Amino acid sequence: MNKIYTAAIIIIGNEILSGRTKDKNLGWLAEQLNARGIRLMEGRVIPDIEEEIVDAVNTCRAKFDYVFTTGGIGPTHDDITSMCVAKAFGTRLERNPEAQRMLEGHYKPEDLNEARLTMADIPAGATLVPNPVSAAPGYRIENVYVLAGVPNIMQAMFEHLKHELQGGEPVRSHAIAVDLPEGKVAHGVTELQSTYPQVEIGSYPFIKDGVLSTSIVMRTPDIALLKQVSDEMRGFLQAEGGKIVEEIAD
Amino acid sequence: MNKIYTAAIIIIGNEILSGRTKDKNLGWLAEQLNARGIRLMEGRVIPDIEEEIVDAVNTCRAKFDYVFTTGGIGPTHDDITSMCVAKAFGTRLERNPEAQRMLEGHYKPEDLNEARLTMADIPAGATLVPNPVSAAPGYRIENVYVLAGVPNIMQAMFEHLKHELQGGEPVRSHAIAVDLPEGKVAHGVTELQSTYPQVEIGSYPFIKDGVLSTSIVMRTPDIALLKQVSDEMRGFLQAEGGKIVEEIAD
Repeated sequence: MNKIYTAAIIIIGNEILSGRTKDKNLGWLAEQLNARGIRLMEGRVIPDIEEEIVDAVNTCRAKFDYVFTTGGIGPTHDDITSMCVAKAFGTRLERNPEAQRMLEGHYKPEDLNEARLTMADIPAGATLVPNPVSAAPGYRIENVYVLAGVPNIMQAMFEHLKHELQGGEPVRSHAIAVDLPEGKVAHGVTELQSTYPQVEIGSYPFIKDGVLSTSIVMRTPDIALLKQVSDEMRGFLQAEGGKIVEEIAD
Repeated sequence: MNKIYTAAIIIIGNEILSGRTKDKNLGWLAEQLNARGIRLMEGRVIPDIEEEIVDAVNTCRAKFDYVFTTGGIGPTHDDITSMCVAKAFGTRLERNPEAQRMLEGHYKPEDLNEARLTMADIPAGATLVPNPVSAAPGYRIENVYVLAGVPNIMQAMFEHLKHELQGGEPVRSHAIAVDLPEGKVAHGVTELQSTYPQVEIGSYPFIKDGVLSTSIVMRTPDIALLKQVSDEMRGFLQAEGGKIVEEIAD
């Protein structure tokens, strides 16, 4: 059996917990990781509180192959992620010469103030992840990637680091949306799940134009098996009188 | 000093972790709770795995005043939330007569199959939360509210339960967005934070029309103090040559 690679995402920031900013990073990273054969197993949204960040980083890095944090690596007083990551690893922040050069290449000398220079303070032993948008880098320390919170900066950082990620066989999925409520198809879906325990079958209700509908999602790395289960599922749903409203394979 | 009420949200479902479904419940609940003087302190996104759900529920209910779960209470094989919540509380699922009546009032007798009836299996000792959209109720057991995952059903359930929530003084916020990058305003923001430690000041970079900009968010239940800090912050940002691009008080 192939190794299953796992990951957690830690979203750091009071602004997400207050509801003021709606997180977009978890969903984006989830798709990217799954496409690379890395299963996102947990997401956490935590406040800018030292103990919470240290705990979350230490819990997740022990439990999963990869950890990604977003947020809290800017120049202001509430940017405490790097200090906390250093603490989680029992190391300390150091002014990183390469990170400082990145900042010097981006800012005019008169603009590179002390606050901005703190963005070159990186936990000892970390490897930088370049930031093509606004220079201040992210970094990796052991299996933890520390990334920016602004979505397009985080995404640009991920473009740099994605090649070093090792994943398993990507999980392929096939989703069938039908205009029947979950309760009407539950028995057949359960039966198919029992017949094919190696395929992960999820059932997700949604409402479209006032009609209670269901999306059945089948997931497995085995493409031939996925096709077989999808065909049987489609047949069952149509036999129940359902109209297939959408089908997405990826 | 007034008690600070706290909450956690547990988002249950593989479809969020695969990136297929983008969660909207955390941000919505965050706003609702904060408006009622309840601080959302943590969000967790976890898979449909028994041990993970039991652990998350038990950790969060011990740590916070309120816990809200979303997802996994439908009629299909992957809806294991109620079983796990019962386990977390050391109790068991029981066919709840009131929940069964709700389902009987909604479905035609021939449509109320065994899969749907399982939605009336509720942990012993729970109080139901009605579901005006699709009948199958949520519930509260001690300080844990178990809600649907479909956003409009979850929201309708929340409308029912919100009156029983006890909160502290709502935190008011004032946000000032300025067309200056974070690094340029960091020193002044830090200084104001030191002057007013009882106000939570957050600094959030964003990019608008290619311009690195910053939103400064000040939060406190004290309206007069909030006005004072906001006025000083605005004065500082303008003195730095910034143009205020947006100001939102709530």
